[in-house]
Amino acid sequence: MKSHTEYLWFNTANRREYINITDRVSAAVEKSGVREGLCLVSAMHITAAVYVNDAEMGLIEDIDEWLDSLAPYGKDYRHHRTGEDNGDAHLKNLIMHNQTVLPITDGHLDLGPWQAIYYAEFDGRRRKRAIIKVIGE
Amino acid sequence: MKSHTEYLWFNTANRREYINITDRVSAAVEKSGVREGLCLVSAMHITAAVYVNDAEMGLIEDIDEWLDSLAPYGKDYRHHRTGEDNGDAHLKNLIMHNQTVLPITDGHLDLGPWQAIYYAEFDGRRRKRAIIKVIGE
Amino acid sequence: MKSHTEYLWFNTANRREYINITDRVSAAVEKSGVREGLCLVSAMHITAAVYVNDAEMGLIEDIDEWLDSLAPYGKDYRHHRTGEDNGDAHLKNLIMHNQTVLPITDGHLDLGPWQAIYYAEFDGRRRKRAIIKVIGE
Repeated sequence: MKSHTEYLWFNTANRREYINITDRVSAAVEKSGVREGLCLVSAMHITAAVYVNDAEMGLIEDIDEWLDSLAPYGKDYRHHRTGEDNGDAHLKNLIMHNQTVLPITDGHLDLGPWQAIYYAEFDGRRRKRAIIKVIGE
Repeated sequence: MKSHTEYLWFNTANRREYINITDRVSAAVEKSGVREGLCLVSAMHITAAVYVNDAEMGLIEDIDEWLDSLAPYGKDYRHHRTGEDNGDAHLKNLIMHNQTVLPITDGHLDLGPWQAIYYAEFDGRRRKRAIIKVIGE
Repeated sequence: MKSHTEYLWFNTANRREYINITDRVSAAVEKSGVREGLCLVSAMHITAAVYVNDAEMGLIEDIDEWLDSLAPYGKDYRHHRTGEDNGDAHLKNLIMHNQTVLPITDGHLDLGPWQAIYYAEFDGRRRKRAIIKVIGE
């Protein structure tokens, strides 16, 4: 069995940002030398997500607006008694999930034609990271 | 390490459909010869999901109605400026997630008594597919 | 390739409970002897979830209230025609997902500083279980 680990660092300019990391994940898979296996991509924070969907800017704005309607920023969450103001970011993370697992076939990410991998930041403007863990053969 | 890959094709009669694929995933696991491992089942599209829940028709109708209340079909999404009409299907996919990972123990899917695996189509009536990727030993 | 399987049993006092299982998952990983790999933690029921987020009680109350606003207990779901009263628990499970996959690096769970693993019970007061499946090398 082979394995390969990489950490991606982010420090977004805005509180919320959606960053296409498909090329970076793909490069990690190539580097791993794994021909058949699985690739986990997971945010290492609880106010960010990794998801697979369309690289279309209109949709990304739809997603952002929709998430904020389901888990609004600025609401008076109990979590804010700790001094934080990011209760919404925790809930947005739960909807979107902090991770995705991708198949590797013949040495490449085995994605459908429109599948792009995104890191979704919900409480940015500081250094945060995600992990890529490839295992297989 | 062993690995095994299969693609499942779907072409639903309706825009939205929920298809029980437990037997097909189970057969792929048997075929793989893997005794201990993991089985990823992932939609290769961004308007379909794979999830684990109950094979009960009333609940499936509840799920469909509930998803459409959270991400309504027919709303004027920004994504529709591209000519698409499936913005809701992308958001439904995000709630339900496009994939699930299943444990394999003693050569079989290690599921609880009520766990069934579903392919959920949110924008059907065309050929789409899912991948099954088994790895283990 | 190495693999290791454990089952965690739960029997909560309340219908809904959020149980921190980070130490139990971590112990299973140590026991597995796996240095590099993946650890799947999955509820074996369709009315419970496994998720990664903050071990902060205010936030956990926020999560519980928020889930119940998105998928209310006591609503007249079609699923209740079967005699069940847990339609909400199925929908809460779908939002939260029944599973998570965690990276293992250098023999330990490779988690960020605030990532805690939770078993979320949405229909408790009976014996239920989750599976931990570790694979790697």
